[in-house]
Amino acid sequence: MEIELKKDERVDDLQFKGLKIIQNATKFCFGTDAVLLSHFVRVGRGEQVVDLGTGTGIIPILLAGRSKARRIYGVEIQPDMAEMASRSVMLNNLGDRVEIIQGDLKECPRILGKSRFNLVVSNPPYKKLGSGMINRQDAMAASRHEILCTLEDVLRTAGSLLVSEGRFAMVHRTQRLMDILTGMRDLNLEPKRIRLIHPNMKKPPNLVLIEAVRNGKPDLKWEPPLFVYDLEGNFTPELKQIYRGDYVLRVPLKRDKK
Amino acid sequence: MEIELKKDERVDDLQFKGLKIIQNATKFCFGTDAVLLSHFVRVGRGEQVVDLGTGTGIIPILLAGRSKARRIYGVEIQPDMAEMASRSVMLNNLGDRVEIIQGDLKECPRILGKSRFNLVVSNPPYKKLGSGMINRQDAMAASRHEILCTLEDVLRTAGSLLVSEGRFAMVHRTQRLMDILTGMRDLNLEPKRIRLIHPNMKKPPNLVLIEAVRNGKPDLKWEPPLFVYDLEGNFTPELKQIYRGDYVLRVPLKRDKK
Repeated sequence: MEIELKKDERVDDLQFKGLKIIQNATKFCFGTDAVLLSHFVRVGRGEQVVDLGTGTGIIPILLAGRSKARRIYGVEIQPDMAEMASRSVMLNNLGDRVEIIQGDLKECPRILGKSRFNLVVSNPPYKKLGSGMINRQDAMAASRHEILCTLEDVLRTAGSLLVSEGRFAMVHRTQRLMDILTGMRDLNLEPKRIRLIHPNMKKPPNLVLIEAVRNGKPDLKWEPPLFVYDLEGNFTPELKQIYRGDYVLRVPLKRDKK
Repeated sequence: MEIELKKDERVDDLQFKGLKIIQNATKFCFGTDAVLLSHFVRVGRGEQVVDLGTGTGIIPILLAGRSKARRIYGVEIQPDMAEMASRSVMLNNLGDRVEIIQGDLKECPRILGKSRFNLVVSNPPYKKLGSGMINRQDAMAASRHEILCTLEDVLRTAGSLLVSEGRFAMVHRTQRLMDILTGMRDLNLEPKRIRLIHPNMKKPPNLVLIEAVRNGKPDLKWEPPLFVYDLEGNFTPELKQIYRGDYVLRVPLKRDKK
């Protein structure tokens, strides 16, 4: 399909099932965290999925490629990012399963309907407001700082969208883990599965992958640590595997078992 | 000093500054977790310290050896364990700095005084009651299961004993991390420093070392992971260093800075 590219835009090959994505080098480009989250989440056949703050649309596109989800919505508040993500969906001929919605994620339950999704994912802005200078008109700033939505907004929206026993998966900074865990529990999203990401095996974890279950029972399962680089500064074999897309999920969904 | 040994007791050399400990092979013996906690905690010169559920007395003895704490109390509810720990204190000639108190840790604030300690440490029983058969008269069971005290009892007692800005350090199972973090915050013990212990670099963390500050501001600092074994099943160099006692603290106390 022929898709128009705008100024400063380029098409990146995701090196996975022929998937591609449009990015704008002057705006927020997706990072390793989005790819790691896409591989951390479990997606069952026929499921309804929402990605809150989808940015380039990387997560819906990767999830469409590696799952049998029926429908994946990507919600993005910034009009130019949402429009670019929509063109990436068209570029991959995923229009029948992936839909980008331009809007405020806090409005999602009203727009998409409450308690009807099996899975909500999010790679939200990490940084709390209040430190440093921020240009609030800047698309980069809104993708990195809690200008347009806070962690609590994301958790509250996820809780509202999910069916009971539905899953919410997120990547965030380990520094915010206290806020994440207490915020989840306050909203009846019980943390069930956690994996820490370390730059290498000698460094503290800087990112956390976490899955919570709406109305789930307390029982937190820890996964092995994920190291991005080895001590020589090269990607670890596991990270290369994830990027190649031939990553084997260790934790199958119950509904996938025969 | 000549110390009497009872039936089934032996003297173990701690291989650190000539320190020794009496243990009874038929009762609860200290584990790697107690040694790792002793090395995780920061102890300032002249500080007042309490160890809740001291068992053999391993933590007060190690802390006396590696710190300039003025006084370290070890509280143990089981009379025979407390009596044995007292003999270990005498064996090491630490009677002027270490005192074992036989009693219920819940009574500690009344006995020792509220809001007067700089540091409280604990290696409490890990297992929740309610699963499996337990012989409640068994000293081993009381050291492993929450028969005589719960996690909440430990947190509540620590909060009561500490001065404002005082530190509480604990080792516990990662499975209980949600209960630990939410329980701490509920009692104004703010988690500030965390280190996860993995059996090896490919395994999930099974133990957590955590330090909270009474009335501290939210700011959780993560330390590098600690691996007990390498992939060949031998102790890692770091673990050997910790056992040799020549472990260098990465995080000095502010009061120790010149």
